[in-house]
Amino acid sequence: MSEADLSAFIEREFPQVRGDFAVERLTEEGIVIRLKVTERHLRPGGTVSGPSIFGLADVAVYLALLARIGPVALAVTTNASVDFLRKPEAGRDLIAEARLLKLGRVLVVGDVLIRSEGREAPVARASMTYSIPPDRIAATAST
Amino acid sequence: MSEADLSAFIEREFPQVRGDFAVERLTEEGIVIRLKVTERHLRPGGTVSGPSIFGLADVAVYLALLARIGPVALAVTTNASVDFLRKPEAGRDLIAEARLLKLGRVLVVGDVLIRSEGREAPVARASMTYSIPPDRIAATAST
Amino acid sequence: MSEADLSAFIEREFPQVRGDFAVERLTEEGIVIRLKVTERHLRPGGTVSGPSIFGLADVAVYLALLARIGPVALAVTTNASVDFLRKPEAGRDLIAEARLLKLGRVLVVGDVLIRSEGREAPVARASMTYSIPPDRIAATAST
Amino acid sequence: MSEADLSAFIEREFPQVRGDFAVERLTEEGIVIRLKVTERHLRPGGTVSGPSIFGLADVAVYLALLARIGPVALAVTTNASVDFLRKPEAGRDLIAEARLLKLGRVLVVGDVLIRSEGREAPVARASMTYSIPPDRIAATAST
Repeated sequence: MSEADLSAFIEREFPQVRGDFAVERLTEEGIVIRLKVTERHLRPGGTVSGPSIFGLADVAVYLALLARIGPVALAVTTNASVDFLRKPEAGRDLIAEARLLKLGRVLVVGDVLIRSEGREAPVARASMTYSIPPDRIAATAST
Repeated sequence: MSEADLSAFIEREFPQVRGDFAVERLTEEGIVIRLKVTERHLRPGGTVSGPSIFGLADVAVYLALLARIGPVALAVTTNASVDFLRKPEAGRDLIAEARLLKLGRVLVVGDVLIRSEGREAPVARASMTYSIPPDRIAATAST
Repeated sequence: MSEADLSAFIEREFPQVRGDFAVERLTEEGIVIRLKVTERHLRPGGTVSGPSIFGLADVAVYLALLARIGPVALAVTTNASVDFLRKPEAGRDLIAEARLLKLGRVLVVGDVLIRSEGREAPVARASMTYSIPPDRIAATAST
Repeated sequence: MSEADLSAFIEREFPQVRGDFAVERLTEEGIVIRLKVTERHLRPGGTVSGPSIFGLADVAVYLALLARIGPVALAVTTNASVDFLRKPEAGRDLIAEARLLKLGRVLVVGDVLIRSEGREAPVARASMTYSIPPDRIAATAST
């Protein structure tokens, strides 16, 4: 799937988060996704909420997967591990760089680094595992 | 903090999630929290979204901590590990049972089981770590 | 599998850890396993090493799985999340209480609390995920 | 600490794993560590055991920390999250590339990719958190 395909896919399939995410670019290992931070992602004090950071990590690795295998597989998140490293900077979007580490027949694993836009030090690190339902296995790529 | 104190604390400190959570009861090891599932927690197909489940786990362990040490400490989530086990049942609230496993001077660890109300099989399991800022250490309990 | 079956299974299949583990008892939710702590599990200062605690968690959940489905499935550990909570007490065995949280066709998830024998406060908490190879799926139980 | 200092430190402080690890090189972000795979790291079938992979991940991130702050701090592992991605290749050492993501006053977080020597596809991914005891805080670097 191209960047435009992925953007259209999010808008169509995830109406609840419409407008939250933008596909920045595909990379050799995965994808770069932007969270357009608005009032509803914030906690008192101006920091981005934990659930918003979790959601960004989940979307980023999921789209890295779809970019590789197409929209056929209904992958389900089975495990997430997140380290919250620093407070995001107020007034900046979050940029997530996701890469796929394993694209198996039943399990897909990727990780992601999240930064405040324009900053080097990461705000969060996450690794995500997805399970591809067995009846979809035949339709997807193998590693 | 009592159940009423904790409920008032959520409403006051977390206006973005006002009305989402209810304190069901304090337990010997921790606390039971309800996520009042509404449209905005759902994904297409009627399942509760990953960020909503993450948020419930985070709030539940955080309130288990506040119930023990009071509202003084500004604990920050530093690590979260979540296993998504089953699809939540449509039309049911989620019930989270959290317990504290460690209440240290600088680190607090708890875990939580989340179920669809009235069901035995868990929907998710999570463990959460919180860091208590060093300048607050003197003010909090030790284990 | 009974307690004796499981003990025989460990001795036969894992010669490298022969003598390390004992099956204490099966429980309604899982199993209780003892790590017989000896010199080779220790780090300087007398604390049990991280890899030894990891190995105990892995064996405990794995045996909880075998107790339920029998020795047929070649389950492979795919994810482990461990919180190290306290220093184990010198001169005491470690006791691991494992429970199965999900026994699916392709994924099995369990968690475990590890304590120094006779003590209440946990030394470590871990959650483990196992994948059952697709060609074995037909042979195993479903949830 | 230089590569030679770190090698001497492992030999002196961790006699139980003497000879297991070699410091390959320091990198801009961290360190590269080799596990010299021998019989005692193997499981039946010739695969490297889970505890050995865990131990490699732990040592690698720990040495990345010592390389940066020196041997003063007695850092303690508090959390580990490991994804086991592929079976290691028989007859090859494992190479771990660790990087530090956060070097705080009380918490240090790093992650690591582990590969069979000469292969591109990773065998495992891990993230590790270390706590620096409060009484050592004054003596160590801050981020």
